[in-house]
Formats: sequence, C-alpha cells, structure tokens
Amino acid sequence: MATVPAPSALRVALLGCGVVGTQVARLLSDQSDDLAARVGARLELVGIAVRDAAAPRDPSIDRALLTDDAETLVDGADIVIEVMGGIEPARTLLLRAIAGGASVVTANKALLAEDGPTLYHAADEAGVDVYYEAAVAGAIPIVRPVRESLAGDTIQRVLGIVNGTTNYVLDQMATHGLALDDAVRQAQELGFAEADPTADVEGYDAAAKAAILASLAFHTRVTIDDVSREGITSVTAEDVAWARQTGHVIKLLAICEASEAGVSARVHPALVPEQHPLAGVRGAFNAVFVEAEAAGELMFYGRGAGGAPTASAVLGDVVSVARHRVLGGKGPAESHYAQLPIAPASSAVTRYQVRIAVSDRPGVLAQVAQVVAEHSVSIEAVRQAPIESSLDGVTAAHLVITTHHAPESALAGTVAAIADLDAVQGILSVLRVEGS
Amino acid sequence: MATVPAPSALRVALLGCGVVGTQVARLLSDQSDDLAARVGARLELVGIAVRDAAAPRDPSIDRALLTDDAETLVDGADIVIEVMGGIEPARTLLLRAIAGGASVVTANKALLAEDGPTLYHAADEAGVDVYYEAAVAGAIPIVRPVRESLAGDTIQRVLGIVNGTTNYVLDQMATHGLALDDAVRQAQELGFAEADPTADVEGYDAAAKAAILASLAFHTRVTIDDVSREGITSVTAEDVAWARQTGHVIKLLAICEASEAGVSARVHPALVPEQHPLAGVRGAFNAVFVEAEAAGELMFYGRGAGGAPTASAVLGDVVSVARHRVLGGKGPAESHYAQLPIAPASSAVTRYQVRIAVSDRPGVLAQVAQVVAEHSVSIEAVRQAPIESSLDGVTAAHLVITTHHAPESALAGTVAAIADLDAVQGILSVLRVEGS
Repeated sequence: MATVPAPSALRVALLGCGVVGTQVARLLSDQSDDLAARVGARLELVGIAVRDAAAPRDPSIDRALLTDDAETLVDGADIVIEVMGGIEPARTLLLRAIAGGASVVTANKALLAEDGPTLYHAADEAGVDVYYEAAVAGAIPIVRPVRESLAGDTIQRVLGIVNGTTNYVLDQMATHGLALDDAVRQAQELGFAEADPTADVEGYDAAAKAAILASLAFHTRVTIDDVSREGITSVTAEDVAWARQTGHVIKLLAICEASEAGVSARVHPALVPEQHPLAGVRGAFNAVFVEAEAAGELMFYGRGAGGAPTASAVLGDVVSVARHRVLGGKGPAESHYAQLPIAPASSAVTRYQVRIAVSDRPGVLAQVAQVVAEHSVSIEAVRQAPIESSLDGVTAAHLVITTHHAPESALAGTVAAIADLDAVQGILSVLRVEGS
Repeated sequence: MATVPAPSALRVALLGCGVVGTQVARLLSDQSDDLAARVGARLELVGIAVRDAAAPRDPSIDRALLTDDAETLVDGADIVIEVMGGIEPARTLLLRAIAGGASVVTANKALLAEDGPTLYHAADEAGVDVYYEAAVAGAIPIVRPVRESLAGDTIQRVLGIVNGTTNYVLDQMATHGLALDDAVRQAQELGFAEADPTADVEGYDAAAKAAILASLAFHTRVTIDDVSREGITSVTAEDVAWARQTGHVIKLLAICEASEAGVSARVHPALVPEQHPLAGVRGAFNAVFVEAEAAGELMFYGRGAGGAPTASAVLGDVVSVARHRVLGGKGPAESHYAQLPIAPASSAVTRYQVRIAVSDRPGVLAQVAQVVAEHSVSIEAVRQAPIESSLDGVTAAHLVITTHHAPESALAGTVAAIADLDAVQGILSVLRVEGS
C-alpha cells in the first residue's frame, strides 16, 4: 500500500458553543484517547468561535479556547465543525475553511437546504470532505447510509418523519384525542416546541430537511424553494379520529421521489397505514424510510434533536473526515452531481382520502362516484356514517372516499367537482395517503 | 492536500456465484459508470471463483469470468468479494487476499462469528479494509453506522431481530393464532424457511449475528461460542396469546450488553412491549435497536436476507473500500480492539414473566408472592385468570407474574422455588421481558 506521512495531531476548530457545541466540546475531550485510536492521530480542539467570548458558559468549557475571531480560527484548522446555525456568517466561514484546505462538518440544515450544493462543489474542487449527518434527523445515521451503504444501489423514494415537534403533537392528538392547539401548548410546556412554533407546525423545518434528503438521495440539487410545503395547522381532532377508523395514523411526511418527470420533494400531513413502520414512530422521535431498487425497504429511527444526540452525529462525522485526512484524501466523491429537473408538484402520483358532508338521501353516493369516474380517478373504498349535527339543519352523512393512485392534478380537479354537487354540503378534509 | 497517484482501474475478484454473487456481478456491470464516478476509478470484475465452472448459471453471468482457481484469482486482485459462505476455504482465501494487500468485502456471518477478529487483525496489520455490512441483517446498514456514525459515542446495548424466518413464524402465530409447527410449515412453503429449519428456529443463525454485533458494538472479541442461545421451539400459541393479553409481542432477540461484569451476548425469545419500535417489525423483516450514551435510542430496519438486498449491502462496502484504495489507505482503524471479559449468562439483569397453573383457592397468591420476595425479586404485576380444564382435575387458575429487573440467577432460583409450592400445579412458561 502507498503510505502517506500521517500527522500526529489534527487541529479542530469549533464554530458555535450553544447546546450542541457544548456537547461536542465535551465529547472531544472525554473520548480523546478513543478518538485518537480510531483516527490514527489526536484531535486537538484549538478554539471555539463565539459571538460573545465573555458570556456565561457551561463549566465544562475551557474559556481559554473561546474567541470572537472566527476567521483566524478557521484559517489555522484542519477540521472545522460548524454548529452556529443560520446562513451567514456560517456560509462564508465554511467556504473560507474549504478554500483553505480544511474538511468541514456541519449540523446547519438551513444553510444546506438553501445552498448545500455550493459547499459540496467547493469541497470536491478542494479535495476535502463536507459531512453533515447531524443536519438531517439529528442522531439518526441517515446521510452516511444513503451516501455510502447504498452507493451501489438506486433510491426510488424517501418518506421521512423529520420533525419531532409535529410528530409529538400528532401523536398526542391520536393517543389522547387532544385538539391541535392543546397538543402544541403541551409540547411547549415540555420543551418539545418553541415559544413560536411556526417553523415546525408550518413545515418549514421539515421542508429544509426534505431538500437535503432529496439532494442526497438523487445526487442532484434541490433547495428549500423547490419543496412544496403544507404544515399540520389544518389537521383537526376529527381528522385524527377518522384516520384511526380507516386504519391509519396522520404523520407529517417529507417525501422525496424520482420519476420520469424529474425529482420532487414535498412536505404535507398524510395518512399512513397502521401496519407501516412509520406509523409506529411515536412522540418526538424521527424516522426516515427509504425505498431502494435492490435493498428494498429500509428505515432509520432515532432522536431527531437534542444536544447530546446531535453531538454524537457530529463526532461520527469528525472521525470520518479526520481519518480521510490521515490518509491524505477525502471520502467517496460526490462530484458527479447531476442537475435533474424538478418535477412540478402537480405531477406527483398519490392517493387521496376525502371526507365529505352530504345530504343523507338515496343516490348521493352514486352521484359522487360518477363525478370521480369522470375524472378518471378510481375509488378504492367508501365509508358512510351519519353526522350527529348537520352543517345546515338538513340531515347529513359523512362520506369518506379513498382513491387509488392518480396524478395530483386529477385528484384536485375531482375534489373541486365533488364540492360543486348539490347534494354535497361541504368538503370536510382532504388528506393524502402514503406508504401503501 | 497530499495527492496519491490514483489507479485508473481496480481489479475485483468475486468468490462465489450463488444467489448473492449473481446479483453482485449484475450490479457491478449495470452500475459501472456510476460506481466509477463515486470511487474515482473503474471497478473491473476480473474473475468469479466457483467450485464447478461448467455448472449452469444465470444468463447474466459472463462465463468467461468463471474459474475454479480461486487462489490465483485472489492473488491478482485489489478487492476480493467473498459470498461463498462457510468457514473453509473462505477463511484461508481471505487471509491470503489480505496478506497480498487486497481489501476484502464479505457477507460470511459464519466465518465472522467464529473467527472475525483474526481477519480484522490481519487487515489492520496489512493496512487494508475488511468490510462486512451484508453479514449482519442483510441490506440494513448497521455495521457502518455503528463503526463510523457512532465512532464518537459509547454503545450500551443492542437488541436485534436478526433472523427473518423466526420473525415471520412468530408474527404468523401472533396475527393468525397458528401453532409453531404450522407457522414453520407455512414459512417453508413461502420460501422463508429452509427444508431443515434448525439453524433458524434453534437460534444458531441469530447467535452468529449476535457475536458479530457484540464484537462490533463493544470493540472486543466475541465468538459464537460466547453467545448463550435459546430458540423459539418451546414457544406455544398460548404463550403468544398471553403475551398479547399483557400488552406484549414475542420476538426472538439477539441481545448484546456491556456491564461491569464484561460483555454479554445472548439469543432467546422475549416479550417486547407493544409500544416498543421492535414490536412493529413484522414478517420476515429484521431490525437492530441500539442504545447509545449520547445518541440515545436508534433503530435500523429492513430486509435481512435475499439476493438483491444482500448484494446492495456488498456493493456499498465495495465502494467504500475501493475509495480508500484510491486514496491509498484504509477506513477508520479497528486496531484498538480490547479483549473485554465475557460476562457469564447468569450475570444478566433482566425481567421475567412467569405463567403458572395454581390451585384456585384463597391464599395462593400470597404464598407465591412470599417466595418471590424471599429471593429479593420485586413483582411489577400479577394477573389471575381461571383455566378452563385444569391439569389434574382440581380447579385451577392461571397466575401471570411479571417481575422488575433482577439478576438472571435470582430469577431462575425464584422460579424453582415457586415450582416447589404445594399449591402450584406447574410452571407453564418462563419468558424474559426486554425493551422496557
């Protein structure tokens, strides 16, 4: 074998010292002997860049390492760990690190969702690694399995529960019959949701992760602007109860697909069959379900957030990029990124479950079925049930229609035409069915 | 960065051309451009070693590649893929490959469970890789996540459903109320079980994987002889029905733990709470649940067997070891293997659920509770239910006792003492409870 003179120590710079940064610094110190054995060189934490070096810190942090001069810190490092978050100055610092020949580990999902491929391209040009396991689904190893374990396979589809807050909220609604607002309030009290829960409940966080997952799975460039997004704010306790009656649970899914029309990524609430592995993902846990041509169905499950879990993912990446530096190179190349077309959201092929309030009189089901058939949509199942208090005083019934797979555009047109029927008092909900 | 002159092509030798080997050869050919882009060099399949080069083969196999001279093939290779199975000649050929400077990818669980550390050690000495993702849980990326993603973390415990045949059998018993023999017969008809199902139902296959998982998770040397093993042959339809009544499902688990007493690995049927992620693993699927200090709970789920899934895992490994060769080195070192003590099976701390037939008369529960307390075992729950036809004509009842955690030895002694009570007609079943 060719032998490259191995460095005796690698200089590690940490950008950011919040919850995750503090845990990363602790693990680097606690595990230093073990890490050195695995890497083949010691990992020396040479500095921690923070905005305010005088601010209070966890007592485990060596204050002598703190600096507010991130640029100088980056310039002297072999490996730069970025856990500061946000687009700037993170992007400029990471591009500077890469240009200077450093390898980079980042947990910054916002940056990668907006501009990841710029970083990956710069890293390929410079012959260094960009690793980002912690940016998608926290502690769950998903980036490395997709990028390395499935390197000889072809991924067709990714379904992810990638936001713990909304999964907790939906789970509480399902298990305790809570209304959405009450479940969100409970999540806030327990620290699972922020004071302003918008980024979670409106699906922005999940959309960022969907962009990263789609880019990774299909070796192309998908940004958060390419992701169609719908949050959970319209999901009602009644939707959740009806889901159960039809053998489903409601999950907020990030869905990435490759088809002839191109690559698509979307985030929306969906009915998942109770038998599907994603249906059992409870509380604030995350999971990513992957369908690959040869490997078949795979699922990766674990904690999607939290200081220690995220730090664990960061450290795994640090060992990999450090090992590559000891060898004098980088991991499997990603330079063959293609720019695949982004398929329009309307081209998605999916199934709908439509819940309708109808007048309770003979022939209504036949009318609705007729309209559905005229749109070339095929019905898989129909359920009817009386509604206790009708919308407008007229005796009414629930009609729950589940379709077979059809293009999104045909389904949307079908729902509009159903709403126009005289016997239809209202469309109560429209939910997509996934994972079947 | 240091630059190593990269080879334009890597010579790949394939040992074995059964179901998996055929799929590996197909993927190497179908994906060759993509693989070359990821690796940075072409992967050239230079030969396939088989016992009988004249035997019939899948038409996708290029017969010109077949050879019965495995030694010469190995001597000229950069990467050796071993999918022949069995201890010999696989071990001798792989050690020869390593000594000659080739990197090795193997799917051979029997060999790794018996003598894996010898291969790992030889590879570290020679500065080459041994990768074996396909040897544990088929297509599920578990080796790479444990060895790389969790490289900065500490694994405490691994619980695995690593045998698809027994999981299918237990699932059929649970969902359709089948007896064990009928479920095994059905699995045989569907191709999920072999004509002689001993290796699966007696837990030998799971024990081999437990040895590999324990070695990997705890960086030590655990062989199949260190694994305590109990199969599913004593599990009855009644056990399965009672499991459900107490909110559990029965799974055959491979359990690897690190404690102060050392490292232990065991395989046995266990009650898993219905809410636990492993409880939802249905049919012939596999899953590995990992508890790590910082990352928390992780689970990896997918197909544990089959030609295409296993080949996918092999190809992912081939890309990694090939990339390391292009760089001129190997992946994160495993040379810091420690020889941790193997904890005796009796030192395991676990929970029991004991189902007893007792005479249906006042005071029996008090007697049993007294005996349990005398052994310093704490009771978590007790259920009583009448038995329709008693064992000996005397009116009898079922008593189901679930304990809190206690040492295996105390639990075994408790069960023996309960059996000695006059009011106890028989011990109907003893099952461990895991995952709670």
